[in-house]
Amino acid sequence: MASSWEELAADKRKRINDSIPHEWRLQALPSDDSVFDFPAKSGLLSDQELKITESTASDLVQQLAEGKLTAVAVTTAFCKRAALAHQLLNCCLEFFPEMAIAQAKELDAYYEKYKKPVGPLHGLPLSLKDQLRVKGLETCMGYVSWLGKYDENESVLVTLLRRAGAIFYTKTSVPQTLMVCETVNNVIGRTLNPRNKNWSCGGSSGGEGAMVGIRGGLIGVGTDIGGSIRVPSAFNFLYGIRPSHGRMPYAKMANSMEGQETVHSVVGPMAHSAADLRLFLTSVLGMEPWKYDSKVVPMPWRSAEEDIIKLKIKEGLTLGYYSCDGVVLPHPPILRGIETVVSTLKDHGHQVIPWTPYKHDFGHNLIGNIYASDGNTDVFKDINASGEPAIPNIKDLLNPDIKKVDMNQLWDTHLHKWNYQMEYLDKWRELEEQQGRELDAIIAPITATAAIRHNQFRYYGYASVINLLDFTSVVVPVTFADKSLDSAKENYQAQALNSLDATVQAEYDPEAYHGAPVAVQVIGRRLSEERTLAIAEEIGKLLGNAVTP
Amino acid sequence: MASSWEELAADKRKRINDSIPHEWRLQALPSDDSVFDFPAKSGLLSDQELKITESTASDLVQQLAEGKLTAVAVTTAFCKRAALAHQLLNCCLEFFPEMAIAQAKELDAYYEKYKKPVGPLHGLPLSLKDQLRVKGLETCMGYVSWLGKYDENESVLVTLLRRAGAIFYTKTSVPQTLMVCETVNNVIGRTLNPRNKNWSCGGSSGGEGAMVGIRGGLIGVGTDIGGSIRVPSAFNFLYGIRPSHGRMPYAKMANSMEGQETVHSVVGPMAHSAADLRLFLTSVLGMEPWKYDSKVVPMPWRSAEEDIIKLKIKEGLTLGYYSCDGVVLPHPPILRGIETVVSTLKDHGHQVIPWTPYKHDFGHNLIGNIYASDGNTDVFKDINASGEPAIPNIKDLLNPDIKKVDMNQLWDTHLHKWNYQMEYLDKWRELEEQQGRELDAIIAPITATAAIRHNQFRYYGYASVINLLDFTSVVVPVTFADKSLDSAKENYQAQALNSLDATVQAEYDPEAYHGAPVAVQVIGRRLSEERTLAIAEEIGKLLGNAVTP
Repeated sequence: MASSWEELAADKRKRINDSIPHEWRLQALPSDDSVFDFPAKSGLLSDQELKITESTASDLVQQLAEGKLTAVAVTTAFCKRAALAHQLLNCCLEFFPEMAIAQAKELDAYYEKYKKPVGPLHGLPLSLKDQLRVKGLETCMGYVSWLGKYDENESVLVTLLRRAGAIFYTKTSVPQTLMVCETVNNVIGRTLNPRNKNWSCGGSSGGEGAMVGIRGGLIGVGTDIGGSIRVPSAFNFLYGIRPSHGRMPYAKMANSMEGQETVHSVVGPMAHSAADLRLFLTSVLGMEPWKYDSKVVPMPWRSAEEDIIKLKIKEGLTLGYYSCDGVVLPHPPILRGIETVVSTLKDHGHQVIPWTPYKHDFGHNLIGNIYASDGNTDVFKDINASGEPAIPNIKDLLNPDIKKVDMNQLWDTHLHKWNYQMEYLDKWRELEEQQGRELDAIIAPITATAAIRHNQFRYYGYASVINLLDFTSVVVPVTFADKSLDSAKENYQAQALNSLDATVQAEYDPEAYHGAPVAVQVIGRRLSEERTLAIAEEIGKLLGNAVTP
Repeated sequence: MASSWEELAADKRKRINDSIPHEWRLQALPSDDSVFDFPAKSGLLSDQELKITESTASDLVQQLAEGKLTAVAVTTAFCKRAALAHQLLNCCLEFFPEMAIAQAKELDAYYEKYKKPVGPLHGLPLSLKDQLRVKGLETCMGYVSWLGKYDENESVLVTLLRRAGAIFYTKTSVPQTLMVCETVNNVIGRTLNPRNKNWSCGGSSGGEGAMVGIRGGLIGVGTDIGGSIRVPSAFNFLYGIRPSHGRMPYAKMANSMEGQETVHSVVGPMAHSAADLRLFLTSVLGMEPWKYDSKVVPMPWRSAEEDIIKLKIKEGLTLGYYSCDGVVLPHPPILRGIETVVSTLKDHGHQVIPWTPYKHDFGHNLIGNIYASDGNTDVFKDINASGEPAIPNIKDLLNPDIKKVDMNQLWDTHLHKWNYQMEYLDKWRELEEQQGRELDAIIAPITATAAIRHNQFRYYGYASVINLLDFTSVVVPVTFADKSLDSAKENYQAQALNSLDATVQAEYDPEAYHGAPVAVQVIGRRLSEERTLAIAEEIGKLLGNAVTP
């Protein structure tokens, strides 16, 4: 007899809870809005386990490679902290500590035998967004109808990370369809922000945002087709990189709208430092992913590109910036975040000049129509297959008015996209010609708001236009909203750019946002991961955020 | 009063003929089947002009850079020879010697003033397929309905080549729609093969094949979505490279099915030597095309990749090869061409091992459906706009049975394509694992036939599957069909693979093909231009074809 969707979801929740060993279970949940400091106070983790989980991935792999730490010790620490994370934040769709410890034991045995690591990530646990397939596990991606199917094949990235020595222990939650920047689905419900349960953890890689945010992992693997790595990174005071399409292997991952190639979703890491992002990227590229995934460009990590930036840092970078894209004005904390970055850079001798956002309204609308170009057939097929309802905010990103697009209309859309990308490159070159030097990157908001209150994410354009351009973008955590500094704008309604802008600005509440993470994105041209990450790292350093808590 | 399509086409033909100065016009056309030697005998070109046009592009740019030749002298020589080419072969859709000479004069003035070339192609005339837009000229691409529209903007590649010092003087003919490997349209009719007027010059870059084949130019710019650079290169005993998508800038060129992105057409050079192909590629990449065309990967020419091949050549390359793709058996001259290459390589100490073509029938069918995924709406719109008829062989490549594809069907096609590409990479890696060394390239036929008789091109799979895989492919001229060596197979019908195979084989006629060029393609993984070209160059050298006549 077929089960109802509610029964299937309840069964999944029970299975996730059952995967947490009894000794790691909390008897009662804390009542505080913030659980950010709870792991340290919980008594569940030993001092060494706290130290491990509060380290950096770069330090850990070095200690593992030198035999100073065992993979089992490191994995146990993160499994425990991840178990806490799930109980506190509701962030896991899969939790499999037994498989992780077994993998760790194998790696320790290898190290014991050969006295060397298997690869650059030897013994490092990585948390995975629930799009990545791991043999023997479910990939439900928040759809009830996908429950009960166990993966027989792994995603290419999982295979390569495993060969590099990474350990897997959890797959984290996503919003139904992935097409929303908050994380809620009918399987496990909503994932919370560790710093305040009233704030969203972001999305769609929101489970990663929460998990890495509370250090249940040090590097999380997310994906981004409209902000889904950058928004949860920003909302959790993390670094995150949206590589350009073709840099990292996406093959054999689950996805919404699989096969949609007008704008590609990309996969990338989220972490507490730029150095840890680099560790992930260099490790994956070292495995020559282009020999497995035909969409990956055969481009190893280019240290020479980083060296160019190091040299430029001494001479002074040339950076553009914008605070407002002309569609929705960010809230005061975000405006202050941009100002902080600009003034900090100027204080250190860098040239920071205004960038005029080019037709972002056009870009935002175009990508919105691309997302919905099958008239949302694909996502509703997967929603309706179980009888579960659609989550409320799907329509915010998936244009419900669009009919299925005809092939020749799609081809026109491709031309509009290409032309827009090239016009943007023209503007980039024009500024360079004016300045007589290279424009190294552009600094911009990622969202109009600091870590947002639930159900209020309305405007994706700050993130999504960068996807349309396929530019490389790195999130740099800047500061926190502060009610004493970030007053609400008075009488904004009269000067609002449009009704969406008015709505977004009206929702700013200095009290409710107090303490919410504020970030910027550092945007480089397509496939500029080395340079853009190096610039982001420098900005983080100048801000005093080289490694975030 | 609107003109009929016949009148519009006649007017265009008249305008092309009028563009040839009187003193360059032939009083009578030669009656020989072959006009290959005619330019040398015509008396139109001076000894120096013959020497210039029978040089290599690499030599010419060196002499131009050293001031030993003027741009005007070089340009005049090629304009004269191109004028002959058009009269003999009917290969030009645009011919503009005045504009070319004016450009040459400017370059000479620059050289006079600064004593240095403007760029790496200073003073070198390049012929362009009539998809490339040059300001002030028509781009009709063989469609009557596109006549009378003069370009206000240039293709990105034209702009960059111009900055590198290249001179433009002709745009060459293509088949109606571009989707055929012979060159015939209703504007100027059919373009002929310089070596025998009964043979096709190939297509769709057939005008380039004929023009460069008879040395009306030394480097021609073609495009390839299913063999369109490689087939005319093969049929004219030329080198040609189909770079992978994203290496060379295609932006702002005219095209059939513009905006179709499931399989991208790519642009690349055709020439008499691998060295001249490299000159083109390095010159374009030196202009940083990725700063102009968003689809170009920011990947400068990688000399280190060439150096790896040079080293491997000493130690012995590892190459795969196949003679038959399992769908259509090539004619005897092509089979002998493959055998010649394989035995030559083995004689020089290289390892050459059989490659099993992986599901080429599937790949050939898949790409055929992709070409027609709009139900051929786009191409018939442009054909019907003038009332001209469709050329007879359009249906050979454009599947007439396919209905316009639905968006979700297209997404499925994208997944089929991606999976096929990855399965092919799996096979590549498997062979490498078996051999314990890298597989450097694969040697294969480009077509089932040597330079084909008109209206007989039926099977595109040898070329088009490589487009589907987006592999880099370089054409190497090998030999010529020889009736004394290449006997027809007896009683083949009984063992034919299928009816198409039977038809193609039945059309082999040792007498009719005697002397027709035979080539192979050297196939490398995606974006492997440096390595694959270096291997092709070595093969050409070993065959004694380093520079072709």
